[in-house]
Amino acid sequence: MKKTAAIIGGGVIGGGWAARFLLNGWDVNISDPDPEAKRKISEVLANARRSLPGLSDVETPAEGKLVFAETIAEAVHNADWVQESVPERLDIKHTILAEIQAHCRANAVIGSSTSGFKPSELQQGASDPRQIIVCHPFNPVYLLPLVEVVGGENAALETIENATGILDSLGMKPLVIKKEIDAHIADRFLEAVWREGLWLINDGIATTQEIDDAIRFGFGIRWAQMGLFETYRVAGGEAGMEHFIAQFGPCLSWPWTKLMDVPELTDELVKKIASQSDAQSGRHSIRELERIRDDNLVAMMRALKGQNWGAGALLNKYDSEIKAAEPAEIDNAKPIQTVARSIPVDWVDYNGHMNESRYLQNFCDATDRFMEIIGCDADYIANGGSYFTAETHIRHLSETHSAARTYTTTQCLSGEGKKMHLFHRMFHADGSLLATGEHMLIHVDLATRKASSPGTVVARKLEKIATLHAFLPTPEGTGRAVEQGR
Amino acid sequence: MKKTAAIIGGGVIGGGWAARFLLNGWDVNISDPDPEAKRKISEVLANARRSLPGLSDVETPAEGKLVFAETIAEAVHNADWVQESVPERLDIKHTILAEIQAHCRANAVIGSSTSGFKPSELQQGASDPRQIIVCHPFNPVYLLPLVEVVGGENAALETIENATGILDSLGMKPLVIKKEIDAHIADRFLEAVWREGLWLINDGIATTQEIDDAIRFGFGIRWAQMGLFETYRVAGGEAGMEHFIAQFGPCLSWPWTKLMDVPELTDELVKKIASQSDAQSGRHSIRELERIRDDNLVAMMRALKGQNWGAGALLNKYDSEIKAAEPAEIDNAKPIQTVARSIPVDWVDYNGHMNESRYLQNFCDATDRFMEIIGCDADYIANGGSYFTAETHIRHLSETHSAARTYTTTQCLSGEGKKMHLFHRMFHADGSLLATGEHMLIHVDLATRKASSPGTVVARKLEKIATLHAFLPTPEGTGRAVEQGR
Repeated sequence: MKKTAAIIGGGVIGGGWAARFLLNGWDVNISDPDPEAKRKISEVLANARRSLPGLSDVETPAEGKLVFAETIAEAVHNADWVQESVPERLDIKHTILAEIQAHCRANAVIGSSTSGFKPSELQQGASDPRQIIVCHPFNPVYLLPLVEVVGGENAALETIENATGILDSLGMKPLVIKKEIDAHIADRFLEAVWREGLWLINDGIATTQEIDDAIRFGFGIRWAQMGLFETYRVAGGEAGMEHFIAQFGPCLSWPWTKLMDVPELTDELVKKIASQSDAQSGRHSIRELERIRDDNLVAMMRALKGQNWGAGALLNKYDSEIKAAEPAEIDNAKPIQTVARSIPVDWVDYNGHMNESRYLQNFCDATDRFMEIIGCDADYIANGGSYFTAETHIRHLSETHSAARTYTTTQCLSGEGKKMHLFHRMFHADGSLLATGEHMLIHVDLATRKASSPGTVVARKLEKIATLHAFLPTPEGTGRAVEQGR
Repeated sequence: MKKTAAIIGGGVIGGGWAARFLLNGWDVNISDPDPEAKRKISEVLANARRSLPGLSDVETPAEGKLVFAETIAEAVHNADWVQESVPERLDIKHTILAEIQAHCRANAVIGSSTSGFKPSELQQGASDPRQIIVCHPFNPVYLLPLVEVVGGENAALETIENATGILDSLGMKPLVIKKEIDAHIADRFLEAVWREGLWLINDGIATTQEIDDAIRFGFGIRWAQMGLFETYRVAGGEAGMEHFIAQFGPCLSWPWTKLMDVPELTDELVKKIASQSDAQSGRHSIRELERIRDDNLVAMMRALKGQNWGAGALLNKYDSEIKAAEPAEIDNAKPIQTVARSIPVDWVDYNGHMNESRYLQNFCDATDRFMEIIGCDADYIANGGSYFTAETHIRHLSETHSAARTYTTTQCLSGEGKKMHLFHRMFHADGSLLATGEHMLIHVDLATRKASSPGTVVARKLEKIATLHAFLPTPEGTGRAVEQGR
């Protein structure tokens, strides 16, 4: 049964909510008096369409229908969920919530995106306070899963249950906060960091760039996968959480932050933390948690490497400096070593060995390096020429495991006109053959996306290597089809 | 020329430093009176060996030599870098630093891992204060790049320059802090969050698990790629940083955190922040920053999906619920739809289309789904049987782009004894054929890693589908080799 959400206030947050609902198959009614609302929403939606469905490896629901309503009444009358994302002023919120409740269904969830107000403040004077809860999301709402759900003492249990069920179905992470407090949980941390950051800038200690780097090259990466307490549990090492608190407890009285109002670290509080931490993470040993943390960090940092951003850009720079230190002379009379690498921990699959698609990733890197050698490098590609792979044949001859040192050689079987025929061999450092990849590539014009002749320099370099490699024995397995007898 | 680092104090942090140096080809001398030091260091090293080299896509240096020194003098006498990571007590640090300086080279860098002490405090009474600086790393030191480098007024410029050059070569991110302050920069944020967290637990607002979830499902993922200020610049939308500060400035006086000591938000401070933010991020428009942020978030969340952890585990749960809602009946008389997905933004490469290795990733998912259909599912695999791909042939017939909706069908060409021969076809949602994948798989015993017969149920289900699919036309392209005429 098709469901409908009403989005009241269509800024960055309201627009993000609209996208989250629409791309999960809900119909969405938007109410926003801003004459620019349509344009703004369409920009958020465009961002969401390009990024959100690809988070899934299954077919996500067909997009719902988007309607810009003339009035709040029109927007909310048939809605199962009403999300209020108007400016952060309590008088405005009260007016809007009253208008919503005058026209919406009695069993609709009314969620407020408020960053700071407590539900009891929002519910003041409401015709039915049981229906109104805080549902505080994080930007970009269409990608980040967290929603803080706070009902306070007046919200109905059914409203909370209804809300968390719906948020689950949207792929979000409802975090139900049982006791209301200003700014809920996450924004209290953000606000503390913000205030500390303002001091550092005010006092000339650091710039915005330096503060951001202090976050994204260090604890920021950790916090994307484990939070504060699980991270410290691991850092505490074998002795765990109590040891950690004992070690860093005394700093509570030191001027390590401007936040000098601290609770007393009584035995009772230490025990409370340690036992909550046991309940949270106790199913894993510290060693297991270390490996989980490291696998997560490697996977995320390698993901950022693909985007050439932050810690990932730093890794690319490190690699290119190692490459720059390699001897420039290449012996073109034998297969060329195009790749050498240790297998990343995140390349291993449920069979306990390197996943098959990573072999092609490795061969793709070998092809990229070969292209670079013949002059089809980043500059050449920026000028509109490149090679596309048309056909590939891979043989998996032996298993490969995480951290194994490997190298890959490339033999050019032919390189004439628009075609380039390569044969890669991937070896373990001990010299045993792990896999072979045979590839046919076609030179293309990136503007027309059609086959085209390579530039003169590339053609000449390719031909030179192809001529020399023609003297090499044809690799075993060349021209093989799948299921051909051995 | 081989370089040597002396690691004074071999706990979690010292051990991490040792691993970082060793795996970058440095020799390492360790000094630690703890009788357990060797075991502890070897555990950190084992973690580092499995994770660090795989961050690189090039061949990293051969590991250096590790020596456990009897005395500090022996450890430091030939060292180019001395890293002090002893307990956080100033008197202990002074004693150790004096002993280091009595025996080390005059041009060695002496870095301290101190979380909180200012360099001027460490340098008090030193024979040569110019040599001693803070080099504060983040756990795990072998993976996380950030090092806060603080010299204070007494350190020599050469020491700082020497240190940053070496840290660069180790793949780290030296952040030089020009004005010393207690706890440097990052730990001030961590300490503020820690103190705020203690209050939330003390007051019964949240548990350690809830606090960690509030971090890792929300702003933690953002902070792994952009820090506080760049994130807020984007959130401010078209009007940028000044708008954002104007919007959230008033909350500075609200009780949103226990940190109530805040600088006055004067016009001067607002301008300072806005102009620093322009210098940091002004080369990108807000729209560009949004896309960069979203691409990073998708890549990292998909990376966590591969690890089935945190936000990634949530995405897997979302997918499995969509799968569970699909009709259970499969028509085995025609090719089976095994995958349907939108192409993730991070699957696109420098040619502006889906990278070739992602086709195999998609076909690998199709094979996994087919295995599941014949009963070779997670339980079966946990019991020791699985299929390994032996050979693959891929044809790239048309380009695929980010966010394109696609589906993949699987035809079983044969399935008898230990062999399974599959043919996948990947289509655009409009029905056009994008690529084909022909695969030969072998059933294996996961204990012996050798070919073996599948279990009875799997064999029977496979045979049933193979028999029905034998009536289908053989797909065009079956049995093709690379560079076979068309």
